[in-house]
Amino acid sequence: MASHNNTLHDNFDVDYVITYRFADTTKAEASRNFQDLVQALARVGLAIEVRNGENCSLLIFVKVTSDDRLNNAVYRSRVKDWLYGIRPAQPDRETQNSLTNQPLTEAERYRIVHHLITGPKEEGNAGIIPIHGQWKNVESIFPLHDHTFNKEWIKKWATVTFLKVEDLDEIRNRFGEKVAYYFAFTQSYFAFLIFPAAFGFSSWVLLGHFSSIYAIVNCLWSVVFIEYWKRQEVDLGVRWGVKGVSAIQEKRREFQHEKEIKDPITGETLQVFPATKRLYRQLLQLPFAVLASLALGVIIATCFGIEIFLSEVYSGPFKSILVFLPTLMLTALVPTITTILTEIATRLNDYENWETTDAYDSAMTQKIFILNFITSYLPVFLTAFVYVPFGSLIVPYLDIFQLTARPFAGNEKQLATPKSGFTINPARLRKQVIYFAVTAQIVNFAMETIVPYLKRQGFHKYQELKTERAAKKGGAAPNAAANDLPEEAQFLARVRSEAELDVYDVSTDLREMVVQFGYLTLFSVVWPVTAVSFLINNWVELRSDAVKICVEMQRPTPHRADSIGPWLDSLGFLTWIGSISTAALVYLFSNDGLGPDGTPADIKGWALLLTIFFSEHIYLVVCLAVRLALSKMDSPGMQKAHAERFMVRKRYFEESFGEDAMELPPPMDREKITRSSLEEEARQGSVRSSTPQDHFWLRQRSWEESAKIGAGLIEKMAPAETKKHQ
Amino acid sequence: MASHNNTLHDNFDVDYVITYRFADTTKAEASRNFQDLVQALARVGLAIEVRNGENCSLLIFVKVTSDDRLNNAVYRSRVKDWLYGIRPAQPDRETQNSLTNQPLTEAERYRIVHHLITGPKEEGNAGIIPIHGQWKNVESIFPLHDHTFNKEWIKKWATVTFLKVEDLDEIRNRFGEKVAYYFAFTQSYFAFLIFPAAFGFSSWVLLGHFSSIYAIVNCLWSVVFIEYWKRQEVDLGVRWGVKGVSAIQEKRREFQHEKEIKDPITGETLQVFPATKRLYRQLLQLPFAVLASLALGVIIATCFGIEIFLSEVYSGPFKSILVFLPTLMLTALVPTITTILTEIATRLNDYENWETTDAYDSAMTQKIFILNFITSYLPVFLTAFVYVPFGSLIVPYLDIFQLTARPFAGNEKQLATPKSGFTINPARLRKQVIYFAVTAQIVNFAMETIVPYLKRQGFHKYQELKTERAAKKGGAAPNAAANDLPEEAQFLARVRSEAELDVYDVSTDLREMVVQFGYLTLFSVVWPVTAVSFLINNWVELRSDAVKICVEMQRPTPHRADSIGPWLDSLGFLTWIGSISTAALVYLFSNDGLGPDGTPADIKGWALLLTIFFSEHIYLVVCLAVRLALSKMDSPGMQKAHAERFMVRKRYFEESFGEDAMELPPPMDREKITRSSLEEEARQGSVRSSTPQDHFWLRQRSWEESAKIGAGLIEKMAPAETKKHQ
Repeated sequence: MASHNNTLHDNFDVDYVITYRFADTTKAEASRNFQDLVQALARVGLAIEVRNGENCSLLIFVKVTSDDRLNNAVYRSRVKDWLYGIRPAQPDRETQNSLTNQPLTEAERYRIVHHLITGPKEEGNAGIIPIHGQWKNVESIFPLHDHTFNKEWIKKWATVTFLKVEDLDEIRNRFGEKVAYYFAFTQSYFAFLIFPAAFGFSSWVLLGHFSSIYAIVNCLWSVVFIEYWKRQEVDLGVRWGVKGVSAIQEKRREFQHEKEIKDPITGETLQVFPATKRLYRQLLQLPFAVLASLALGVIIATCFGIEIFLSEVYSGPFKSILVFLPTLMLTALVPTITTILTEIATRLNDYENWETTDAYDSAMTQKIFILNFITSYLPVFLTAFVYVPFGSLIVPYLDIFQLTARPFAGNEKQLATPKSGFTINPARLRKQVIYFAVTAQIVNFAMETIVPYLKRQGFHKYQELKTERAAKKGGAAPNAAANDLPEEAQFLARVRSEAELDVYDVSTDLREMVVQFGYLTLFSVVWPVTAVSFLINNWVELRSDAVKICVEMQRPTPHRADSIGPWLDSLGFLTWIGSISTAALVYLFSNDGLGPDGTPADIKGWALLLTIFFSEHIYLVVCLAVRLALSKMDSPGMQKAHAERFMVRKRYFEESFGEDAMELPPPMDREKITRSSLEEEARQGSVRSSTPQDHFWLRQRSWEESAKIGAGLIEKMAPAETKKHQ
Repeated sequence: MASHNNTLHDNFDVDYVITYRFADTTKAEASRNFQDLVQALARVGLAIEVRNGENCSLLIFVKVTSDDRLNNAVYRSRVKDWLYGIRPAQPDRETQNSLTNQPLTEAERYRIVHHLITGPKEEGNAGIIPIHGQWKNVESIFPLHDHTFNKEWIKKWATVTFLKVEDLDEIRNRFGEKVAYYFAFTQSYFAFLIFPAAFGFSSWVLLGHFSSIYAIVNCLWSVVFIEYWKRQEVDLGVRWGVKGVSAIQEKRREFQHEKEIKDPITGETLQVFPATKRLYRQLLQLPFAVLASLALGVIIATCFGIEIFLSEVYSGPFKSILVFLPTLMLTALVPTITTILTEIATRLNDYENWETTDAYDSAMTQKIFILNFITSYLPVFLTAFVYVPFGSLIVPYLDIFQLTARPFAGNEKQLATPKSGFTINPARLRKQVIYFAVTAQIVNFAMETIVPYLKRQGFHKYQELKTERAAKKGGAAPNAAANDLPEEAQFLARVRSEAELDVYDVSTDLREMVVQFGYLTLFSVVWPVTAVSFLINNWVELRSDAVKICVEMQRPTPHRADSIGPWLDSLGFLTWIGSISTAALVYLFSNDGLGPDGTPADIKGWALLLTIFFSEHIYLVVCLAVRLALSKMDSPGMQKAHAERFMVRKRYFEESFGEDAMELPPPMDREKITRSSLEEEARQGSVRSSTPQDHFWLRQRSWEESAKIGAGLIEKMAPAETKKHQ
């Protein structure tokens, strides 16, 4: 516990801070409710201190009082893990021994204490779920940042390019496996990117765009990367002792059962919601997918049409300004529609009434992925597979967008679409891919790090100004920090600011990486340098994410996980689609490496489809082969898992059967019996029971007799040749 | 044990019979070897009786002498199962209790005794592997048929159409899970066939051939069937307590390790063969696949060409006889080449040096499947996708086959291929499918049941004749039955005849079913009545297989399994290919339901490929959807598995933490402390240790104090609105 004291020194040993907000409640109710809360916390053995929070809130500091209590909870959790097959070996029956053998990491401690606070009452926890039912005033429950560690961590990362597995261990020990898996994934992805970055750059220089060699190598690389990562996941799971942890499912509080049934075998009362009913509800996803595709598709296609009209048809004044109109429309409309659709998706997901948090998250991830797929890739798909091949056919119909430029046009001619002779802009596709590969990444980075920083600074300034003005007027709410004790003041100020930070959601960051991976598999053949841009971006991304966790977000509560979850399927799906889209792009535009030339007249449908057919099936076969090959290879994780299981079995067998269990019994105990006793026995036997079986089995009295008789038979029956041979 | 005695009455309680053949060994060596064998058997606690066998062989009868010995072996096996996660609950520590709770099935007994005889010496077994190393004289080890049961079983099956799960349990209890899984699969398949049989017949009557509706329904049906069976496998695995049994791997005796390494963690000595080296060796499969495809493909294509030449070009004499020439060639050549290729495949498989029996079998199954795929489906593929669409192009070049008919031709004109105006025979494809769906099934059935019967009868007659003639001459080898005791004579005669029977190999029967399933998914759209034929065939097949096991084969040694193994993948593969081939067939030949008309001129390549593309991807999506939907459904097996796991956890938690582990600790143990003692403590505390933490945590002494202070803060900080509200 000594190290624990040292590292947490700044935090006064606080395990968790609970913010209690009473702005919308009457005083009496708030007090009563607060008393219940404090009592519930005390009941599970937590020490409590209350302080003032900002804006009608209280900060409740809790820590575990007794080591026994904590150790017992840890032991219970470990036994549970063992029973669910996550730990190969049963934890030592003595709690203290068990903890000495395998000391508690910080993340484990935080996880256990969090479970103590939020876990179900029936299992002896406090059952406090923020903003839910009885605890609607509890706003959040969060641990405090360890600023000493954070500073060192960020400093280290600034100087090191490749994270070692020990660095990942460090993240896991601090922030839990879920966050660690994100960093491990991004790190693996970053390291793997070096190859396509180098190869892509060379092929860009040597082979130009739309090189089929680059396409094949890139697709192969994606397959290998995904299969490698799957393996890496398992390895890390073994290393961190979380393999199979998804088997422990926590019930969602929001789950509404339809009926309660008593299990006939176990007598357990089960709250069930019929799977068929959920399946019917899931069918609503189909109209939702259609709706989302239509809504986003129409917007994107319209803006796309307007853009082409303005940039390539329109020739009137203000062209250079008007050209930005569709981009503006997109920037305004797509996030709005996405927000609405996400809201609908959440409602749908709620309505599907999932029983466990994992299932809920997984279903939600799928829906979010569909939305992201449309918003991220549809524009490029439109350019590649609609604009370029069919541009000359479509452009004449674009005069419906005259509306957008009519007020500015000098004469009708400037708005007229060319009836013939229109040539598409061959650079458009490349420009678009470069936009998504470079510009969008930078914009994203800015949105993610700089904007929140400015926002926070502004907010602080605003608060200060407000307080000052209120102080001048004298009638304002009392300052939260007014009564702070001097030795606590600095600490409390820090806690108050941490309480206002956002909660870190690792799936947002993962989504970003997956979407980025999609550009690489789907479109990088257009501009092979894509991977270089991503490589640079991800170096920054990894570090900025670390900073984000340390500075801009509340310290995340550690959660366990044994994979990056359903995003893995998304990665596989993107590679698959990539094998189709890349083949199509190469066939359509591979014009001696010059890129699309706007003369797609000599494209043959059957040849395009045949290219796709082969590409896709080769992808599938390669995928299978790589998976098979990797599954045959040994890895440190698998070796460790095997060794652990072996040890458990060995120990158990030694305990149960003793070291000598394998010893053979002494042969021939019948030998000691004398001839006469045998005869006596046989006589008695034939009197006592004279079943045919007994007769049969008593003919030969011992194995020696059998051997002798056998030898006799061999002598008699052996073929004549053998006789001669002797 | 009473029932055991009754049912085995006829078999004199014999557990296993070992045949020892000494025809090729000198007498001295045979005797010495025999003594070793008998000693090894006695050493593991088996009672032994030796009798004469046919043709220079001995029959060694063994049974387990002591119940303790057997029970101990059973207990060890069950503990091992538990440690490998196959049994959810640890077997009762008392062996006898464990056996009373879960009595021994006949199959389990036979399996345990078999392991006692053949299992590795290091684990306390006899280590006798037939025809291997030291035991090259041991020809076979087999249990004896239970004729009473067999008779009843076959009688029951003759009257019952649908097997209930209890019937499958019966098979499992007698012949072990591996055989039971085959019957369970065939039974499920049979039951599922009723739908396509009914639907196929109606669609044949109403929609004609090549109906796209039939194609879609048939493909959907295949997907549902396979997914249903996967689930059924799991359910049966739970029911029979074998789920996950494939985790227990038995090392192959033939495995040759490259080096021995000592595991650094466990200290276990591991015999390893590098996985990469095996991968390289596996690459040899590629040239093998090419060779096999070429060899079989050339033969099949040649015969096919000759057949078309003779039946549709040649017009000379003997045409009606010559037409059978290619069929004869096929019948003679294909099995020969297949045998050679199977031999090569076995060598390859041996060379791959698999470590476990399961891995070896699985790799072999894959190779066999490839061979079967070519021989079974290539002829139809050739007709459908080469002859019909390109017939008119190819036929003019068929004069290379003039050779086959030249000796009989009256004049050159009879041999000349028409330079134009040739029309293909549109009925050829249908005829071929009907041949494979009906004729081949009947031929197969005859080959499988009637031919071996006749062979056996002939062999017996031949033996009798030989013995008679030898007896007349007087100089022959002595008759094996000459010295039999009268009360044993009948029994020994039966055992001698059983010793001569073949060993039952369930994978041959499974392969037959898989190949049949392939015709259904790949080609049944040509002739939708296919399923009706298969339905009838499989009713007979199930029964004839039962008869085969009981009469024509040695009783199989029970083996455990938790699935039908790699054949499952083959089924999935066939459905996948089916989605492609069916779509292509429908597009090519769907001529208003009239079938191919030999005018494929208006076939468009892109349309064909687009049809295939959509069909395949719809198949993949449907496959995923069905899998997802089924995985959400509850099933008896999964309920049982869940209940079992729940009981284990509950029991363990109750044992470890007691029934009251969930009880809450008494709140507020600080309350009893008086005010003065608190102050004293605080003073002393500040003397003893005055860290900031202590100060922080001692401000509020109990949860009541925290609650009170919190209430005060709420009173002070609450917003004005709330005050008005009161």
